[in-house]
Amino acid sequence: MSAIPQDFIQKTAQVSEAVTQPFTNSEKIYIEGSRPDIQVPMREITLTDTQTDSGIEENPPITVYDTSGPYSDPKIDINLLRGLQDVRADWIAERKDTEVLTQPTSEFGRQRESDPSLANLRFEHRRQPRRAVTGKNVTQMHYARQGIITPEMEYVAIRENQRLQDFRQDARYEALLRQHAGEDFGASIPDEITPEFVRDEIARGRAIIPANINHPELEPMIIGRNFRVKINTNIGNSAVTSSIEEEVEKMVWSARWGGDTLMDLSTGKNIHETREWILRNSPMPIGTVPIYQALEKVDGKSEDLTWELFKDTLIEQAEQGVDYFTIHAGVRLQHVPLTAKRVTGIVSRGGSIMAKWCLAHHEESFLYTHFEEICEIMKAYDVSFSLGDGLRPGCVADANDAAQFGELETLGELTKIAWQHDCQVMIEGPGHVPMQMIKENMDKQLQDCFEAPFYTLGPLTTDIAPGYDHITSGIGAAQIGWYGTAMLCYVTPKEHLGLPDKEDVREGIITYKLAAHAADLAKGFPGAQIRDNALSKARFEFRWEDQFNLSLDPERAREYHDATMPKQAHKVAHFCSMCGPNFCSMRITQDVRDYAAKQGVDENDAVELGMKEKAAEFMKQGAEIYKEV
Amino acid sequence: MSAIPQDFIQKTAQVSEAVTQPFTNSEKIYIEGSRPDIQVPMREITLTDTQTDSGIEENPPITVYDTSGPYSDPKIDINLLRGLQDVRADWIAERKDTEVLTQPTSEFGRQRESDPSLANLRFEHRRQPRRAVTGKNVTQMHYARQGIITPEMEYVAIRENQRLQDFRQDARYEALLRQHAGEDFGASIPDEITPEFVRDEIARGRAIIPANINHPELEPMIIGRNFRVKINTNIGNSAVTSSIEEEVEKMVWSARWGGDTLMDLSTGKNIHETREWILRNSPMPIGTVPIYQALEKVDGKSEDLTWELFKDTLIEQAEQGVDYFTIHAGVRLQHVPLTAKRVTGIVSRGGSIMAKWCLAHHEESFLYTHFEEICEIMKAYDVSFSLGDGLRPGCVADANDAAQFGELETLGELTKIAWQHDCQVMIEGPGHVPMQMIKENMDKQLQDCFEAPFYTLGPLTTDIAPGYDHITSGIGAAQIGWYGTAMLCYVTPKEHLGLPDKEDVREGIITYKLAAHAADLAKGFPGAQIRDNALSKARFEFRWEDQFNLSLDPERAREYHDATMPKQAHKVAHFCSMCGPNFCSMRITQDVRDYAAKQGVDENDAVELGMKEKAAEFMKQGAEIYKEV
Repeated sequence: MSAIPQDFIQKTAQVSEAVTQPFTNSEKIYIEGSRPDIQVPMREITLTDTQTDSGIEENPPITVYDTSGPYSDPKIDINLLRGLQDVRADWIAERKDTEVLTQPTSEFGRQRESDPSLANLRFEHRRQPRRAVTGKNVTQMHYARQGIITPEMEYVAIRENQRLQDFRQDARYEALLRQHAGEDFGASIPDEITPEFVRDEIARGRAIIPANINHPELEPMIIGRNFRVKINTNIGNSAVTSSIEEEVEKMVWSARWGGDTLMDLSTGKNIHETREWILRNSPMPIGTVPIYQALEKVDGKSEDLTWELFKDTLIEQAEQGVDYFTIHAGVRLQHVPLTAKRVTGIVSRGGSIMAKWCLAHHEESFLYTHFEEICEIMKAYDVSFSLGDGLRPGCVADANDAAQFGELETLGELTKIAWQHDCQVMIEGPGHVPMQMIKENMDKQLQDCFEAPFYTLGPLTTDIAPGYDHITSGIGAAQIGWYGTAMLCYVTPKEHLGLPDKEDVREGIITYKLAAHAADLAKGFPGAQIRDNALSKARFEFRWEDQFNLSLDPERAREYHDATMPKQAHKVAHFCSMCGPNFCSMRITQDVRDYAAKQGVDENDAVELGMKEKAAEFMKQGAEIYKEV
Repeated sequence: MSAIPQDFIQKTAQVSEAVTQPFTNSEKIYIEGSRPDIQVPMREITLTDTQTDSGIEENPPITVYDTSGPYSDPKIDINLLRGLQDVRADWIAERKDTEVLTQPTSEFGRQRESDPSLANLRFEHRRQPRRAVTGKNVTQMHYARQGIITPEMEYVAIRENQRLQDFRQDARYEALLRQHAGEDFGASIPDEITPEFVRDEIARGRAIIPANINHPELEPMIIGRNFRVKINTNIGNSAVTSSIEEEVEKMVWSARWGGDTLMDLSTGKNIHETREWILRNSPMPIGTVPIYQALEKVDGKSEDLTWELFKDTLIEQAEQGVDYFTIHAGVRLQHVPLTAKRVTGIVSRGGSIMAKWCLAHHEESFLYTHFEEICEIMKAYDVSFSLGDGLRPGCVADANDAAQFGELETLGELTKIAWQHDCQVMIEGPGHVPMQMIKENMDKQLQDCFEAPFYTLGPLTTDIAPGYDHITSGIGAAQIGWYGTAMLCYVTPKEHLGLPDKEDVREGIITYKLAAHAADLAKGFPGAQIRDNALSKARFEFRWEDQFNLSLDPERAREYHDATMPKQAHKVAHFCSMCGPNFCSMRITQDVRDYAAKQGVDENDAVELGMKEKAAEFMKQGAEIYKEV
């Protein structure tokens, strides 16, 4: 990574206007919970009225799940230098099970803090780390199992519902609430997400709220099969390219475009400092793969990794506030030979590092042998496990093989151990899998890992489209999300080819948002179809601006429309560029309705109530061919 | 449409170099059939060798299905003015069941030919139209039912196999032939596609070869559930934008990027002349929706449409060489009221035109009442039916409703009638359908339409992502292709927003190519995985150029790679920009293998043959933890 420019701090202190601009016709609203400091943000999109012959019909505002954090609230002054306001600090403090440390516990953490050469890189407003009081367990799972509903749990319950209960009481929303029955493959999605349901799901390990006590800026969110399908985005510098500045900028854009969580996969220099900047400014849970940084500390020599060094890295990151760690503890020595005949061997970076270590030392993985010690660290900060799939298939040919499934079984064993410590766990999944073999992955994961949330990369359904792997994987992601995967790790168009830039991140996120939403619809998540219904109604009524504003990427929808018909007048025109003014099927359909109405036939009645008198008269004109179906 | 520029002919006569450039490291090859004039084009990709410690390993060339036509053959001189060379002229003539007409049968066709104001638009080398001799039936289905294997049938059999039988005899391909078992949901895909199998599938209506006797330039291809999944692309001008020049250019690019068939959906002026240019230069089957042109002839007034006018349009287009017609004969008067409560009414242009006509006249659709007369026209030229889904759902809310399924049942009735005339038929399908409701569409279509090939638009699995509808629909397309759909109609990013430009067409086509290929893999189509295996092996071995050349869009793969690592040296580097040189999982995996090999353990043996002596020694060093799984 190039040295950070001297003007970095100044520049980021004035974060770009584009990324803090409110969405068009949208207002940031906050739904208050049972106490005034539970304020759940949502985005409310205001729509225009429908003009009909009989007058004006109101289109009520639509609420959408909002991951963008304070950045899209014009009332909040954003200053990356200072970091975001705390959301959860009081909730954590009032539980009285944590203590504030005077300095980082990690040796490496202390060293970085005192290194004068890093002054120009360092985030200034560092907070003192917090840790569980000795003997205490501060995980959301631990509270849940004690029967305690935390503010975090209530927060996510409100967030998942998205005001559905209000809408059900409001006649204006009646038509919008129309939704097809889902097929949820044995999930247990309730009609309303209550705080108690959240608690119960966390207690039994079917959902997690990744929320480190050292990341109080976080807006809580939940990952589980019975909740909305989430998406994870990845950023991170590497030895070859990218800077802190770019990574922070990507993080803010990720939040705006709809990322639910974010993994910082940096492998270059200054990983510690980059992470601090990201955490202090992120409203999303942040995940990492600690082995990456550990490897940097031994100059890339896997063999030199030790448990002590890794442990210090875990504590270093936990005290910064990382919300979940990918731990490749399922890559055991005995699994390594199973990869020998693969077309693409071991493609997970973490997996291959650990495989190499195991062989070099002829020893079982220290992640496996020290797993309970890792649990002790996780529960002292409430870092969630993301048990890594180090042996995931890197191509279609290697899908669902003995190495992959052997590791998955080990992850199941480890899940049980983590749960004995009340640690929150999710399980990472593949990878490259052809469509007919995707469901086996989901079924086996549910069985082997006792319904712990599944968190998959794609899967990519074919290997032959580099440059389009957001799509080869979006196809698999939508399917596995439907089958029960709780979170989908996005893939960008640059996958296999290069590091994603800002536009690639956008393309990857929107692809995964639509895949996750398609999965919510297919599962029948309550209220999921409201946005589809509202957008389609706007489309049918040529309310172009409403259509743009309701879409996942309003800027792109507007831009594509304007590419053919840039004039403002076209946005109220009752036609579009595809067919022209005299050839619009939607317009013709309206004509059909109007025509039928003028003739005195009420089509609804004809269908719904049978032949009414007036309708019958009209029918006669068409003789017997106009008959009911 | 703006008047065509005077320099159009000159310009198109020198078709752009980019679109005729051979693919890198690829050669156009022709596989000869049972007679010398059956020459089936394929693209052979040459790969570089693998360098190993023990020497050089050859990577044999890979053959891929090639839709690009003569444009990618450097030995052929392309001249749009003259049109493509005939492929099928002799096959048609030698059947002695057709006659060459002295002038077009269609009144409109004659009128356009004699209009001097169209001289600068007109394609010069028009051929005289051909028609079945009175009493003869020239459809491929008719021949098939007589037990005749036509050269077209043999051609597609060779094309579907893609030399798989050769590769099975060649030891170099052994590892590449590795393929997972498919799930084909009751399809009957044979291990080898024989000409006799093709004949049988066509005879029973399960597949079609769209191949008008007036389109001899066409390279035959087959559409059916037991063959490779195909994709259709749409182009066409409209009253608002686009010119003949752009449309012809898009057609050639569509062929190059992988479109199997192409629909000319023009709705503006000079539709007749645009179509002639496209047909004479297209190696792909061309489809149209004749009602669009018929509507132009009555200045956009649906009510003024008549059977006579429509019939003249069918004959006009059949004599130009259109290979399949979308006919919305399933939109019956009785179905119209079923759409009244829909969120988006009738979204098919053809469907809404016919619905409007039915209501205006209080009469049954003339397409339905004159269906047998349409069959008479179709079989005189071998135009295939694409029975249109005029009542397809335009949003998720309207999916699988009574209107849609009512029409589908009517399409089944019409299929039976068409088959009585030995007319080839495929059935169009939706539309917008959430994932959990897609399979019902496929199952119902198979049942109601007796396994006639299904040809679907998407389906789009959510409505909320305008600007990304190639992806919302690619997800649905991959699934329905897997379930049994024979051809997927592409959707571009501009769907719902504007007319696609060249880049949108590219994005739409590659998205659908990868979806169709994912479906082939899932169905277990023999040999489908060869390309995935070859590309993944290249990826693992850092053969960057081979990886690019094997991909669906080599230019984009190369471009994306070079965006981060532009230097030529990086293309032979054993790392990429994602992880940098010291952090590459693939490199580490190779190290793992090498390390194990040096220690004297043969991993394959350890797994496959149990503990051999040497391996056992090595195992001892790791004690009992290194045990077989």
